[in-house]
Amino acid sequence: MKATVMYGARDVRVENVPDAQLVEATDALVIVTRACICGSDLWPYNAMVPSEVGNRMGHEFIGLVEAVGAQVRTIKKGDLVIAPFAWSDGTCEFCLQGLQTSCVHGGWWGGTMLDGGQGEAVRVPQADGTLVPLRVSPDDALMPSLLTLTDVMGTGHHAALSAKVGPGKITAVVGDGAVGLCGVIAARRLGAERIIILGRHPARIALAREFGATDVVSERGAAAIGRVLDITSGRGVHCVLECVGHAEAMLTALSIARPGGAVGRVGVPQQDTIPNGQGSFFANVTIAGGPAPVRAYMNELLPEVLEGRIQPGKVFDRITRIEGVPDGYRAMNAREAIKVMIRF
Amino acid sequence: MKATVMYGARDVRVENVPDAQLVEATDALVIVTRACICGSDLWPYNAMVPSEVGNRMGHEFIGLVEAVGAQVRTIKKGDLVIAPFAWSDGTCEFCLQGLQTSCVHGGWWGGTMLDGGQGEAVRVPQADGTLVPLRVSPDDALMPSLLTLTDVMGTGHHAALSAKVGPGKITAVVGDGAVGLCGVIAARRLGAERIIILGRHPARIALAREFGATDVVSERGAAAIGRVLDITSGRGVHCVLECVGHAEAMLTALSIARPGGAVGRVGVPQQDTIPNGQGSFFANVTIAGGPAPVRAYMNELLPEVLEGRIQPGKVFDRITRIEGVPDGYRAMNAREAIKVMIRF
Repeated sequence: MKATVMYGARDVRVENVPDAQLVEATDALVIVTRACICGSDLWPYNAMVPSEVGNRMGHEFIGLVEAVGAQVRTIKKGDLVIAPFAWSDGTCEFCLQGLQTSCVHGGWWGGTMLDGGQGEAVRVPQADGTLVPLRVSPDDALMPSLLTLTDVMGTGHHAALSAKVGPGKITAVVGDGAVGLCGVIAARRLGAERIIILGRHPARIALAREFGATDVVSERGAAAIGRVLDITSGRGVHCVLECVGHAEAMLTALSIARPGGAVGRVGVPQQDTIPNGQGSFFANVTIAGGPAPVRAYMNELLPEVLEGRIQPGKVFDRITRIEGVPDGYRAMNAREAIKVMIRF
Repeated sequence: MKATVMYGARDVRVENVPDAQLVEATDALVIVTRACICGSDLWPYNAMVPSEVGNRMGHEFIGLVEAVGAQVRTIKKGDLVIAPFAWSDGTCEFCLQGLQTSCVHGGWWGGTMLDGGQGEAVRVPQADGTLVPLRVSPDDALMPSLLTLTDVMGTGHHAALSAKVGPGKITAVVGDGAVGLCGVIAARRLGAERIIILGRHPARIALAREFGATDVVSERGAAAIGRVLDITSGRGVHCVLECVGHAEAMLTALSIARPGGAVGRVGVPQQDTIPNGQGSFFANVTIAGGPAPVRAYMNELLPEVLEGRIQPGKVFDRITRIEGVPDGYRAMNAREAIKVMIRF
């Protein structure tokens, strides 16, 4: 089968790899119908140390179940299923509290041991805990929005919950990538009074406004902080969604939160230290978030998509077949595309 | 009047200074009856850059109102009052939400502009918002416990709330100083199932056990982390109260929190970066806390002390007159004393 393998920075290839197959009795074999490239895939795209074996890529996909292991109970051959960006057993103490990204028997797609979503088929461990059946056809017009529930929409929602967004709250979203844009949707849906997007890319900003952003701050660094303080009477915002992961973005996020405010961080941190530890301390700013348990959010967000109340699929502005995946990485990295969908 | 002035590291003097007096119409003049030395006073005691003018010291006191300004409404001459470690107007948006340590018209005791609590009298700005009258005599046996409500007991409570302590939660307290010990009281009071104190000083550990600690971890650094993981089946704890402020303590705190757990930080950070930003991200650990709004907690904690349900005053193991304050700093810094009370 064909799959995407990354061998180093800027070195993404689509290759023939061994066919995915069932291994454990709790597995499902899924033939991928849709997948996509994630902003977080760009971190290794820019920095991966060269590898001879390479890493299988992709953690966002929808597909048809081809076969299931003997112990799988809730998923059956022929089901159209959506997969969260982490797999999980659904029964451990962390899964039961809704934190499936910390499942004690769970893990992450791709790498050297498992299939990735950017390929024709995937062996899905812990199929009962991981997969959610979809009662629509594989070519339904809602596919793009459904696909965002594998990661970016659930991640934006996690950022908003972590930042304690609610009615009346002034909210800022740091980052205009797909996660930031979904964060705008989430903040609006949770009742934010005002939503300030920090970003500068015209097409992304236009989409942010369509999703509900009320203010745009295009400055960066100290100028961005000053601008947010200006438009909030010097107080800062109640809630910040940090959707980038760079230290500078985190510094901005922590500097624009008002006393007693909260930063929901979902951008994968590229440094091991969090800046502005003293300023955020003296202002009693809470720092929360991490990898979103998007599996937990399916119950809440799936009806929102199916009933048309949110349209996060608009973040996809380019579609490719699998052969075009390497160019999709290039385009996203060059900010020519917000997010690239792969049709199989 | 006599007051404590710090001129540099290890250079604490009791001197004659100009008498405290009313300046603004919202001030009260308070004759101090009890005060104390705080663990946070030891940061400048060890590191203050020499100063010719010096800093007035002390932010924890109880006293008798000698006079009030024309606009003071709720406090009157003769009242015995308790003062939080920060003064606040009680009416700004942050005060109204219970975050008086971020009052827009508030501030901190001592320094070069205001009196400190370690002196015979204090000019109290924003008296109506700041002071809480006590309906007991100045020599009541409860004085030590009441005095802790100016800072350490409220701070321990803030750490516990920030760490989301509640029934059934396994809780760790990093630090065996007065704040950590009060954190044990707070954690027990809020229903923690198990309370692990990280510390090694025998007298402090004994008091921690008396206050409700169920486990003691005397190791430090990686060994302490390993020990906490050992006694929590490898999972870590739900709640961590960080009551020190050193980077190593914060690293320990963030490393022993289980996925989805929370660290309540109240130790004044001595570095501007927070360590373990990636590990805490991947585990969805929340970092909360800051300067405790002890003024907000008076309503909840004052009855607890007055009715004898908590006895945080046991953290005082030395009493001095004002002349003994410099030696009190020395003793606390040498860990000969947990916390020193000053009687006037």
